Amino acid sequence: MIFSTATAVSHPNIAFIKYWGNTDDALRLPQNGSISMNLAELTTRTMVTFDSSLPRDIFDLNGVRQSGPSLERVSQHLNLIRGIRGFSVPAHILSESNFPVGAGLASSAAAFAALTVAAVRTAGMEMSEKDLSRLARRGSGSAARSIPPGYVEWLPGSSDIDSYAVSIAPPEHWPLTDCIAIVEDAHKKTGSSEGHLLARTSPLQSARVADAGRRIDLCRNAIQKKDFDLLSQLIELDSNLLHAVAFTSNPPITYWLPQTLVLMQAVKDWRRAGIPCAFTIDAGPNVHVICESSATSIVKERLGAIPGVSEVLTSGAGGGTVLI
Amino acid sequence: MIFSTATAVSHPNIAFIKYWGNTDDALRLPQNGSISMNLAELTTRTMVTFDSSLPRDIFDLNGVRQSGPSLERVSQHLNLIRGIRGFSVPAHILSESNFPVGAGLASSAAAFAALTVAAVRTAGMEMSEKDLSRLARRGSGSAARSIPPGYVEWLPGSSDIDSYAVSIAPPEHWPLTDCIAIVEDAHKKTGSSEGHLLARTSPLQSARVADAGRRIDLCRNAIQKKDFDLLSQLIELDSNLLHAVAFTSNPPITYWLPQTLVLMQAVKDWRRAGIPCAFTIDAGPNVHVICESSATSIVKERLGAIPGVSEVLTSGAGGGTVLI
Repeated sequence: MIFSTATAVSHPNIAFIKYWGNTDDALRLPQNGSISMNLAELTTRTMVTFDSSLPRDIFDLNGVRQSGPSLERVSQHLNLIRGIRGFSVPAHILSESNFPVGAGLASSAAAFAALTVAAVRTAGMEMSEKDLSRLARRGSGSAARSIPPGYVEWLPGSSDIDSYAVSIAPPEHWPLTDCIAIVEDAHKKTGSSEGHLLARTSPLQSARVADAGRRIDLCRNAIQKKDFDLLSQLIELDSNLLHAVAFTSNPPITYWLPQTLVLMQAVKDWRRAGIPCAFTIDAGPNVHVICESSATSIVKERLGAIPGVSEVLTSGAGGGTVLI
Repeated sequence: MIFSTATAVSHPNIAFIKYWGNTDDALRLPQNGSISMNLAELTTRTMVTFDSSLPRDIFDLNGVRQSGPSLERVSQHLNLIRGIRGFSVPAHILSESNFPVGAGLASSAAAFAALTVAAVRTAGMEMSEKDLSRLARRGSGSAARSIPPGYVEWLPGSSDIDSYAVSIAPPEHWPLTDCIAIVEDAHKKTGSSEGHLLARTSPLQSARVADAGRRIDLCRNAIQKKDFDLLSQLIELDSNLLHAVAFTSNPPITYWLPQTLVLMQAVKDWRRAGIPCAFTIDAGPNVHVICESSATSIVKERLGAIPGVSEVLTSGAGGGTVLI
């Protein structure tokens, strides 16, 4: 039995108001809403083929056959989709990204968004954007935000039914750029899944969550009104709040490296000097510098000149996950 | 009219559970209790002479005649003491410290503790340790903790009457050492007084304060039982909580420099390798490494070998403020 094959293309997203900590870890229901921008130039392309001749799922990621936890997580997600459709045929999953996986670029968001859209289609189902976002969320929380296009808000909800993301503005609404400074890191990383579990051990997490609604409203307004000054303050505050929770968790998690602090300070200095740019940092040492598109060249050039920055990627706002 | 002269010697203190934010800025009533260790080897010696022939207060600090805010703050504190005694004679204040002032070593704690004890005696009054601590608090909050000897707890209280510090263990109870790594800093500093005012603008401050009683109880126990593992976890958490509030204040304050992060990570690595040491950081980039006295030499040597560390000071636990 071959249901056919389908391929989807997705983008990772950079969160302006961040997701950190769940009310339900299995369902990945977040403790707070979040807002992000899809990254047009970073893409993950995933082809799913259900094939009854296969003994089990096969997952090839950037040309490398996967096994262990990596295969397991993908199989579990496909089981959800197979369960909805009511069959149990193994799949061949072929996934390619054009950006370095494991450089802390939230590759799992794009991966599970593309996997969800491709697998649902291959299984012969039609789903609304909302249901695709709900389903992608089950594979990786932030994947919910890579389903709709442009600037996206994840409504936290209180159950599997009402926790999904919606677009709040199309990509062309505001041409922001994310200049991603890749910082060399010799230290072992704490994955974001483990970070989500540890969030509740910080004395600060409940205060971060309690204030999130206010930040979400301000951030949505900043995007709608294209108010870069307000956006700058908000994204730097929100990023600092996540890292405050991380390094006051038990055990503490420090994602910042010394070079991360150098970059944070540089970005603040540049903004004070009139360049419209602001930093935000995910669960890793890389620094995402969000800037107005007019400042892209100068920000990219300056970031690249800072010692310890191995590479600078840039991306504008991108669309949602689409079948090709 | 000359009331005579008196000289007091005091020590700065390093807080294990930190003071950050007031419920009353004028009275310096803290939002949470705090615990500290006086630093024996760092001393401030202050002589106060009331002299009716002076036109106004004169304040010589490390051989430099002071004016402006520095003189003003000392005069205001003396006005409190003159008000209690009921006179208004100008004073000559001569103060000398054996450690670099302005290197972020909480020099104001020792300064106002010594000033209080010397001025009260010179004015011909006798006061209990408790009342001296209350009075020193008015000059600089953490000065309250430099009045009693050894390991000290500041009971936050709810008014001027019940906010003072008491000794919870004498210096000889537990021979810990503070190895202070002085980090070069080209950036303009935000003073701790300004930091206290900004604390309330952080979404995290109320959560930090709400959890403080728990940390105080654990820290007091750790000191009483000489439990270095527990103390290590607590002081690093508490330090991180202060800095979390600082860099989520509006405007944000970042006291950490890149080199501060290097030192924090090094200390954690050394502890994991069996050296009993832990970091704590006040409102500045310097890193205080608290260690069991057996580890002093190795910690001092290792800190000194890290680039960006200009000097390493060491001190054991010290006594309170005394007249000499």
